Amino acid sequence: MASLEDIAVSAFINILSTIGFLLAFAVLRVQPINSRVYYPKLYINGLRNSPRGSMNGVLRFVNFNIWSYIVSFLSWMPEALKMSQTEIIQHAGLDSAIYLRIYILGLKIFVPLTISALLVIIPVNVSSGTLVDLKKDIVFSDIDKLSISNVKPGSERFWVHLCMAYIFTLWTSYMLYMEYDNVAFMRLHFLASQHRRVEQFTVVVRNVPQISGHSIAETVDHFFQKNHPDHYLSHQAVYNANRFAKLVRQKERLQNWLDYNQIKFERNPDKRPTNSIEYYRQRINVLDKRIASEHQKIIKDPKAILPVAFVTFGSRWGAAVCAQTQQSKNPTLWLTEWAPEPRDVYWKNLAIPFVSLSIRRLIISISVFSLVFFYMIPITFVQSLANLEGLEKVAPFLRPVIELKLIKSFLQGFLPGLALKIFLYILPTVLMIMSKVEGYLSLSALERRAAAKYYYFMLDSKDNWGIHTNESHILYDIHNGVAVEILRLKPLVIYHLKNMFIVKTDRDREKAMDPGSIGLSENLPTLQLYFLLGLVYAVVTPILLPFVLVFFIFAFLVYRYQIINVYNQEYESAGAFWPHVHSRIVASLLISQLLLLGLLSTKKAAHSTPLLTILPVLTIWFHKYCKSRFEPAFRKYPLEEAMEKDTMEKASEPNLNLKAYLADAYLHPIFQMLEDVELGDIRADKNQANVSSPQITEPISPPPHYVFDHASSPRHRYDHASSPHHRYDLDSLPRYQYDDDDDDDDDDCSPPHYVYHHDI
Amino acid sequence: MASLEDIAVSAFINILSTIGFLLAFAVLRVQPINSRVYYPKLYINGLRNSPRGSMNGVLRFVNFNIWSYIVSFLSWMPEALKMSQTEIIQHAGLDSAIYLRIYILGLKIFVPLTISALLVIIPVNVSSGTLVDLKKDIVFSDIDKLSISNVKPGSERFWVHLCMAYIFTLWTSYMLYMEYDNVAFMRLHFLASQHRRVEQFTVVVRNVPQISGHSIAETVDHFFQKNHPDHYLSHQAVYNANRFAKLVRQKERLQNWLDYNQIKFERNPDKRPTNSIEYYRQRINVLDKRIASEHQKIIKDPKAILPVAFVTFGSRWGAAVCAQTQQSKNPTLWLTEWAPEPRDVYWKNLAIPFVSLSIRRLIISISVFSLVFFYMIPITFVQSLANLEGLEKVAPFLRPVIELKLIKSFLQGFLPGLALKIFLYILPTVLMIMSKVEGYLSLSALERRAAAKYYYFMLDSKDNWGIHTNESHILYDIHNGVAVEILRLKPLVIYHLKNMFIVKTDRDREKAMDPGSIGLSENLPTLQLYFLLGLVYAVVTPILLPFVLVFFIFAFLVYRYQIINVYNQEYESAGAFWPHVHSRIVASLLISQLLLLGLLSTKKAAHSTPLLTILPVLTIWFHKYCKSRFEPAFRKYPLEEAMEKDTMEKASEPNLNLKAYLADAYLHPIFQMLEDVELGDIRADKNQANVSSPQITEPISPPPHYVFDHASSPRHRYDHASSPHHRYDLDSLPRYQYDDDDDDDDDDCSPPHYVYHHDI
Repeated sequence: MASLEDIAVSAFINILSTIGFLLAFAVLRVQPINSRVYYPKLYINGLRNSPRGSMNGVLRFVNFNIWSYIVSFLSWMPEALKMSQTEIIQHAGLDSAIYLRIYILGLKIFVPLTISALLVIIPVNVSSGTLVDLKKDIVFSDIDKLSISNVKPGSERFWVHLCMAYIFTLWTSYMLYMEYDNVAFMRLHFLASQHRRVEQFTVVVRNVPQISGHSIAETVDHFFQKNHPDHYLSHQAVYNANRFAKLVRQKERLQNWLDYNQIKFERNPDKRPTNSIEYYRQRINVLDKRIASEHQKIIKDPKAILPVAFVTFGSRWGAAVCAQTQQSKNPTLWLTEWAPEPRDVYWKNLAIPFVSLSIRRLIISISVFSLVFFYMIPITFVQSLANLEGLEKVAPFLRPVIELKLIKSFLQGFLPGLALKIFLYILPTVLMIMSKVEGYLSLSALERRAAAKYYYFMLDSKDNWGIHTNESHILYDIHNGVAVEILRLKPLVIYHLKNMFIVKTDRDREKAMDPGSIGLSENLPTLQLYFLLGLVYAVVTPILLPFVLVFFIFAFLVYRYQIINVYNQEYESAGAFWPHVHSRIVASLLISQLLLLGLLSTKKAAHSTPLLTILPVLTIWFHKYCKSRFEPAFRKYPLEEAMEKDTMEKASEPNLNLKAYLADAYLHPIFQMLEDVELGDIRADKNQANVSSPQITEPISPPPHYVFDHASSPRHRYDHASSPHHRYDLDSLPRYQYDDDDDDDDDDCSPPHYVYHHDI
Repeated sequence: MASLEDIAVSAFINILSTIGFLLAFAVLRVQPINSRVYYPKLYINGLRNSPRGSMNGVLRFVNFNIWSYIVSFLSWMPEALKMSQTEIIQHAGLDSAIYLRIYILGLKIFVPLTISALLVIIPVNVSSGTLVDLKKDIVFSDIDKLSISNVKPGSERFWVHLCMAYIFTLWTSYMLYMEYDNVAFMRLHFLASQHRRVEQFTVVVRNVPQISGHSIAETVDHFFQKNHPDHYLSHQAVYNANRFAKLVRQKERLQNWLDYNQIKFERNPDKRPTNSIEYYRQRINVLDKRIASEHQKIIKDPKAILPVAFVTFGSRWGAAVCAQTQQSKNPTLWLTEWAPEPRDVYWKNLAIPFVSLSIRRLIISISVFSLVFFYMIPITFVQSLANLEGLEKVAPFLRPVIELKLIKSFLQGFLPGLALKIFLYILPTVLMIMSKVEGYLSLSALERRAAAKYYYFMLDSKDNWGIHTNESHILYDIHNGVAVEILRLKPLVIYHLKNMFIVKTDRDREKAMDPGSIGLSENLPTLQLYFLLGLVYAVVTPILLPFVLVFFIFAFLVYRYQIINVYNQEYESAGAFWPHVHSRIVASLLISQLLLLGLLSTKKAAHSTPLLTILPVLTIWFHKYCKSRFEPAFRKYPLEEAMEKDTMEKASEPNLNLKAYLADAYLHPIFQMLEDVELGDIRADKNQANVSSPQITEPISPPPHYVFDHASSPRHRYDHASSPHHRYDLDSLPRYQYDDDDDDDDDDCSPPHYVYHHDI
């Protein structure tokens, strides 16, 4: 364990570098050229427009107003706090608001814990002073004098620690209970106040059996007409459109180049890029034919229809019933669950059959198991290779460079940890891929699964590295994890690189500035780990609690700022991750109790230890109680609620054409850009579709009534989907997941008729 | 570990005593006087009538036909095998048939395991022979030479054990899978072929909220009419009838005495017991008045209605939907689950509110935890008191007796183990009481919970006693658990004692001969423990496997015989316990793998041990797969099935009056014996009941159209409940659970007009 001075030095260095980062952030964010890196969310929500339009020359790119720098350095914290929770929900969605509540929960738990631990436990530990007596023999660090190690074995003072463990557990449980209650209420309120949404009427059914002589569509229709006669409305078949999507994206890239050249030509009619224009036109024509034939194949080939369907019901009640009940006598067929929001669907996983699914889960659990417990083996192996001699062997031409003294000493310090760093850097991606292989249907579920895996990994690896290195680790996390987060160094560089080399049109820039989601799969486990550290320290080494507090405060401010200005959630799960957060904090409580139990039994505190065995039992009971009390609010949809909304809707909109409203909501996004006429049999409401000309004769062109509607806030995204003419509103179906294994360039199906104004 | 000779001696003694028990059984069971102890099931099913009617004098009680003794000793085994599985289902219900399949599963798993272990592992162990070399230093028993202990640490021979562990796991899993498949099919087939049953239309709803100004009945009606408008039919309120039931039972006891005296008087008119007749008449009159006022109170007092209701639906589909979905926005209100069969309902637990429920479960889990881990503490304490000196102190007058040498040595051998024996004897009862406190609604669930507790206890206690004592323990179990089971010594004694002192009427004798259920709560854990022992021995000490085999064969024969001739299941859960059996055997597999893992790692088998870590992961995956594949068949009711049965019924019986069919099915059994006129508001179908005279003026008398219909097989018990005039068929609602805390004498509400012929 580090001494107090070590920690102070480490803290000082980290604080300095954090201030450096914040200064850099203050400077960078006021540059107009970086505006789209530091405020993408404001652009997306229409709260900010291009600042460069009004300015000229170099002012469009660089800010020379010194005053603004000073303001910038000081103002981000007030900026982070300026929105109320309700405004945050409006602005960034409920998921983000609930995510921020985790930090608040951390403060609510740890502020009283820190104060009482500092006031009660530290005096008890210090005054016990066994370590002072023994000092001559064994070297103890200063921190140990403040920790439980300082108390004599068998001392009656352990009663204090026992009482504090009980008090801490009670307080933590109380806070957890109140917060679960609160989040459940927020979720229910949010769901209740939502306007009509397609997923309220839709159930996804998997493992539709193949009945010979019948198409999947007939089987689905027959089954639901038979078993849900009063509620079944229609269904949307799911097509295996991965090849089709690839072709369409290829065409879009070409179209993008064509547009670029055409605009270039319009601007400088003397410099004629006619050759390239002609070239792209020709390639697009060829591609159009391939797209048309692929399209025909999808329509004609019954094998293109996957044994999955989105089944829509005439009422929320009917959908709630179907999602919560078992349909078939064979429990592996006709598996129903709530359909995720259309933008939350991970299309690629819809086609996985039941048996393959459980084998996939087996393989992944074995992999995760090996990864968590044996990840050091390959890393140590790689590290043993990645030394200077190895490098010189592989690349002898580098020898003169490597032998330079300065570079040599740098490499000697840098190389050994490199493999581990690379591994930790790619780990979240690897875990996300693993979760995708497991076959979950929605992005939100994938993130939760990846978060769970990351948590297990961190739990085990923290354990391996020993709790002794944790102090400096927290300081490192505060610096690295949080200050780097607000600086957004990586997105900044990537954005400018893209802007220089790739961006050709506005749509391209839009994509280059895309901030993505918060990244729950990494952030949730990190947060949960801090709860674990805090709870473990609380009784054993309370002097470290203030660091945990600082982390929670600083990270809260940074993430609140980022949620307001940067991140853009891909989907809205209405806080579906909360039960995981709750149960992992309860698990941390359990771990801390068991650690304390072990510690006290080695300290021969025979009187107090047995009483401590009751704590884990109480904690497990608390967990079970919360589970039965609150979890249904996150997993199920009560019939009372469904019936209420149905009744209200029937009263207020008696003539609502629900079939038209639900049509195409769950069509694979790649089809959304096709004309009605081209969709043919693919649509859910075949009666309404114009089926007269399923033959495609003309090349596919983007729909003419395409609207860029970025101003709509995410809360209302789906509301205007009720009119079929808004179907192409890109904002309502952004960032769907393509099959991007075979294609790194994940262009969206962007419309080609935007205006070109490229910087530089 | 015992030596081979020790085991042989122990086996010999046990075989001898087992033969003794079987001889005793052969003698006792052919005595006509014991007929109702050894063949109660045949009486209940009407396959056997009183054998004494046709015989005279002493022949009515004792059998002098020597030939029949010889036949009796040999014939019980063929008798046990004479019924086919289908006949057993007809005769004793599906639960019993599935219970017997556990033994068959044991044989299917362990016959190949035993053969291959004896052929492969024992030769490997014997030829390794480390222990022979070391013999001079340490004393090893002969068994160790055949076990894995005989293999040198670090030997490559452990690969054989590793391979066998994989093969055994695969074989066990395969058998478990096939059996689960088979049992699930049997269950579905059984449920599908059942005729209309009340529980198919009924859901029990708990935690009905108290809305001021509305009665519970109004609240329930309103809620279900609103949220299940197309399917809700009616509901049966649940009354707190514990006091009423107590009074009715008191009256019955008096009526019994009165009848006894009256018949005595009729037989011997000269000996006039007029006084006692008058006395009983008067007391009955007083009681009648109290019953009437209590009855009024139940009808009038809204507090007598508990916040629970049996809600009936117009279709199986509607009930299936309601049972499987969440009703209310508040997940602690309106909790719905399938209603158990009426005879399976444990009425007393219906009134427990949600919060109290979770506190009860907390208290019970703490108690079970303490019981499992610390049960030896009080027993050791009691044992330290229960020695000769203590006894002499407490009862000094016994000193002369105790000081006799023979008695003294007997007591010295007997006393120390007495406390443990008494504890083990009352343990199942204690565990059942604990399960009742937990608040489960049905007898079947109570039995499953008690079985789980008993299993944990046995798991821990076997561990404490050490695996070394297990060999003799198995032999003891075979003798004690199985031979004693078939001899039925305790029921035999109790029956004859009751016959001598208590039985006054035929109905009393009926009760005295009541064999009860198999006692799943004790037998399932015992069986599961044998699976554990077998799986642990299989690789480590395979020589003990034959004993496990003998247990399975012998116990199978005995229990098959008993199920045919003795036991009478109280309820039919259609094999609802199988998922527990399955998962405990899988848990045994896991335990055996982990034990082997620990053993091999102490044996320094560095090459083979890591490969063994995959086995538990595979096993857990297998468990999860089976759970998702088969468990829904035991927990849910598929809508497809419900719809099919509804449609068929509508076609075959278009004019069925479902409301009349369902009326009173879930009325508290104590009300079932009242006249229609007296039921008043209590009935579910108030419109049909004659509400004109809710006032009770006449004393309550048993219903005149009472039918003893024991001939009906259990499969059809509920079928004839469709006619309301069969409502009083006692066979369809036997052995319901009273509140018997305050009253040990749990008389049934039996009708008083049976004929008296009492054997001296």
